[in-house]
Amino acid sequence: MPVTTQIANLAGHSIIAGQQTPGEAGTTHGINPATGGELSPAYSLITEAQLAAATAAAEEAFESFKELEPEAHAAFLEQAAANVEAAGQDLISRAALETGLPEARLTGELARTTGQLRLFAAVVRQGDYRGVRIDPALPARQPVPRPDIRQRKIPLGPVAVFGASNFPLAFSTAGGDTASALAAGCPVVFKAHNAHPGTSEIVGRAIAEAARDLGLHPGVFSLIYGPGASIGQALAKDPAIKAVGFTGSRSAGTSLMATAAARPEPIPVYAEMSSINPVFLFESALRSEAGELAGAYVTSLTGSSGQLCTNPGLLFVPVGKDGDAFVVAVRHLLAQAHGATMLTPGIARSCREGIDALEGQDGVEVVARGVEGSTENAPAPMVFGTDVPTFMSNTVLQEEIFGAASLVVRYHSAAELVAAAQSMEGQLTATLLLTEEDHPVAAPLIPVLERKVGRIIANGWPTGVDVGNAIVHGGPFPATSDSRTTSVGTLAIERFLRPVAYQNIPNGLLPEPLREDNPWNLTRRVEGIISQHP
Amino acid sequence: MPVTTQIANLAGHSIIAGQQTPGEAGTTHGINPATGGELSPAYSLITEAQLAAATAAAEEAFESFKELEPEAHAAFLEQAAANVEAAGQDLISRAALETGLPEARLTGELARTTGQLRLFAAVVRQGDYRGVRIDPALPARQPVPRPDIRQRKIPLGPVAVFGASNFPLAFSTAGGDTASALAAGCPVVFKAHNAHPGTSEIVGRAIAEAARDLGLHPGVFSLIYGPGASIGQALAKDPAIKAVGFTGSRSAGTSLMATAAARPEPIPVYAEMSSINPVFLFESALRSEAGELAGAYVTSLTGSSGQLCTNPGLLFVPVGKDGDAFVVAVRHLLAQAHGATMLTPGIARSCREGIDALEGQDGVEVVARGVEGSTENAPAPMVFGTDVPTFMSNTVLQEEIFGAASLVVRYHSAAELVAAAQSMEGQLTATLLLTEEDHPVAAPLIPVLERKVGRIIANGWPTGVDVGNAIVHGGPFPATSDSRTTSVGTLAIERFLRPVAYQNIPNGLLPEPLREDNPWNLTRRVEGIISQHP
Repeated sequence: MPVTTQIANLAGHSIIAGQQTPGEAGTTHGINPATGGELSPAYSLITEAQLAAATAAAEEAFESFKELEPEAHAAFLEQAAANVEAAGQDLISRAALETGLPEARLTGELARTTGQLRLFAAVVRQGDYRGVRIDPALPARQPVPRPDIRQRKIPLGPVAVFGASNFPLAFSTAGGDTASALAAGCPVVFKAHNAHPGTSEIVGRAIAEAARDLGLHPGVFSLIYGPGASIGQALAKDPAIKAVGFTGSRSAGTSLMATAAARPEPIPVYAEMSSINPVFLFESALRSEAGELAGAYVTSLTGSSGQLCTNPGLLFVPVGKDGDAFVVAVRHLLAQAHGATMLTPGIARSCREGIDALEGQDGVEVVARGVEGSTENAPAPMVFGTDVPTFMSNTVLQEEIFGAASLVVRYHSAAELVAAAQSMEGQLTATLLLTEEDHPVAAPLIPVLERKVGRIIANGWPTGVDVGNAIVHGGPFPATSDSRTTSVGTLAIERFLRPVAYQNIPNGLLPEPLREDNPWNLTRRVEGIISQHP
Repeated sequence: MPVTTQIANLAGHSIIAGQQTPGEAGTTHGINPATGGELSPAYSLITEAQLAAATAAAEEAFESFKELEPEAHAAFLEQAAANVEAAGQDLISRAALETGLPEARLTGELARTTGQLRLFAAVVRQGDYRGVRIDPALPARQPVPRPDIRQRKIPLGPVAVFGASNFPLAFSTAGGDTASALAAGCPVVFKAHNAHPGTSEIVGRAIAEAARDLGLHPGVFSLIYGPGASIGQALAKDPAIKAVGFTGSRSAGTSLMATAAARPEPIPVYAEMSSINPVFLFESALRSEAGELAGAYVTSLTGSSGQLCTNPGLLFVPVGKDGDAFVVAVRHLLAQAHGATMLTPGIARSCREGIDALEGQDGVEVVARGVEGSTENAPAPMVFGTDVPTFMSNTVLQEEIFGAASLVVRYHSAAELVAAAQSMEGQLTATLLLTEEDHPVAAPLIPVLERKVGRIIANGWPTGVDVGNAIVHGGPFPATSDSRTTSVGTLAIERFLRPVAYQNIPNGLLPEPLREDNPWNLTRRVEGIISQHP
């Protein structure tokens, strides 16, 4: 299939079921956060009536998409990836302009985005997520015969996805939520983040064109621009929508959770929200490589202006001279670190407010201070310091500051670490920096962390999420709204599926994945045991 | 392991972490619903302070139970099954006394209950539910090396389970929720249904004694009796509780959902609530076996006094002489059907109220009427009739009447059936009674039903849920609070698990299921592909 995406001109409109749709609720503009200047074109915003057309089209597309043959389904995801890839440098340039993120970072993010789509294409081809289970009939069973019972997972229905500000590609229009929902067979209505409307249009067009070129119902994907939070709330309330994917702030995420729970038919919300990602630095590791660790910490903290959900916002460092030396090294390194443009003026403002709030807390001191950036919206990176009792007694110290700000907590003992970990809210990650000598001290912490986080890392840094089959990007509330899943990696597809059982259904009426001759060559669990089809 | 359950004397107290615990919030009695008389002994009710001891014990038991070696874990479930089984006739007699259910029905239910526990023991031994996924390190990968990432599912934490009135064994103390939560590695705090306190004590003792005999922390299971709904709300609010299993009314279930969503840390609620289980009778099937179908309908409707979540509360019958003949046959059969004692006076009252409400609706007529039972609380079975437009225009006709009451809806066309199905709320089941000749008419209904129900049945009746690996006892709201799962069958274990990823964790610090040498011999998904251990 040739790549057809043309990105020469941005139209500035929603794409509803394949159609450029001028919105009737005013306009907005992208902002260049480095200058504060408005970017062309203006983006028209849709009304709730126009939104209803998008959700109705998604509902109309559902049944054929749900039963799409795996090869065509996978080809759609691959074509979307190829179309996004073909937008290439134009896409990266636009994203850089709208977000202030460096092009090198965006180049990596683009590869991750297309890689995710292709990974889910492979998942669709492989088919295990369909969850086929067969308990064959046992007509002679006593006291009653057993009927033939077959189970498969079906997609939930149309899904609303909300783009994140901080990953304009990988957690946005064709990001992990969209990719996994489309892979599950759920049409997607994507609400663009108003911080990167042009980026969203380029990618949205790529997906819509893939659907068109492969002959799918155009309702499988819509991209909408709307005024403020109201259109998002309307989307989450729409009866056609059966699940929500969201990445963003705790306040916006919990608001969507409340909306979804209050519907006549409540629906699941997968919101990835807030995390300070504790890092535990142990004695022996500190002794052996204090300087390298200080450098790696500052790099992890300041990359992407700290605007990463797995940013190390909290670092536990032992008291004593090695810990002191580490802190001094951080101070020297950070003194040379310049703030970089943040995604939006609002995010930069919130970051400054969070820094001011932390600086004003009793028992918290400034440990290291970077340099204000030369562009707009580029606050200086900051590291604060405190001790465990202060950390445990003040919940302000557990609040995420979205940006390059972190808190070093000095600890005296393993018991203090365990107590501090137990006092924490849910997190996406926890990190252990240790040598073998530290294992006895670290071991009792692990069961505590398992209860609190989605991913435990040793001798790495939490930033950098490797998309694959084993990754978990999730965790207990408030890291996410639903700890039973992940928003990154192949397991994410399970968020959008539900099981249905078919009892004694004649073969001719069974859906293809369950038919006796297994036309899709799926792995089946027969009598509870996995049975790969020959 | 010898069976140690002694049921000679009921103590009348909660069992908190293995200890008989007299409650300090007054007492209640079981009621014999056939006579209205109080049953001995009195049951003492616990205070919220006493409840906190149960949840604290569950939390204390969690870590060791979570990492319990599979053979010991499975042995616990099997010992619980053996202990319940050993209670035998005493247990069945007590359950019959408390519920009014026939002993034959309870004998089957006991076998189902112990069978469930043993099925989950097999699931624990087999271990696939642990969801082990490994993406091995790729040190040479460009542009960055891949770390070693391993994933497993861990239990959510202590679980609150609420017993159902209508299955004093299979959906109660050692029922499907308890069995699947214990299999997942979650300690259970079980809130007894006050309608069968003695039955609950016998079974609760069997579980507590299994835990004791196998040397588990006694906090793995507690059985509590409490005053009214307040103790249940307190249990769902307790910070130690990480999930709720519930079977019961829509109002109680949605109340628990609201409580769980409003917690500082929201938790999942698995509530199985309300369903009218539509049955679709097609022309050719009707022609060929109208008499048998009428008999089977009346049997399915009146069994267990209609107090089954999959009771056929709604039957679509074609207009015309065959449908008329079917209705006449139902009328004759039901005229000889006697009401049987319902579970509680309150349930019998609600059933009568529901019948009265339905009888008062415009366009609804009585089609068949049974005979009031000779005991207390035994309303006459009832079948009402209406047409599709009336059914679709009045939501009262979609409300569950818990008991032997059903509505026959006469239809003209396949299009009417599809429209009626589309207008319905979520259901546990939908049933098709058809011959091959009916397939073209039935086929377009199936995709509609897949969106609405958890299980589609052909040529059977919805009552009778076969516990196995492929069954789904679930469905969209209001059938359940969470359509992504099932409360019966082996898949139910997944309700109580969440994934955790371990990145670059040294082998010695990894939990056993993830260690390099695979000491528990688990199936692993390596690079996304299932790999059975040799």
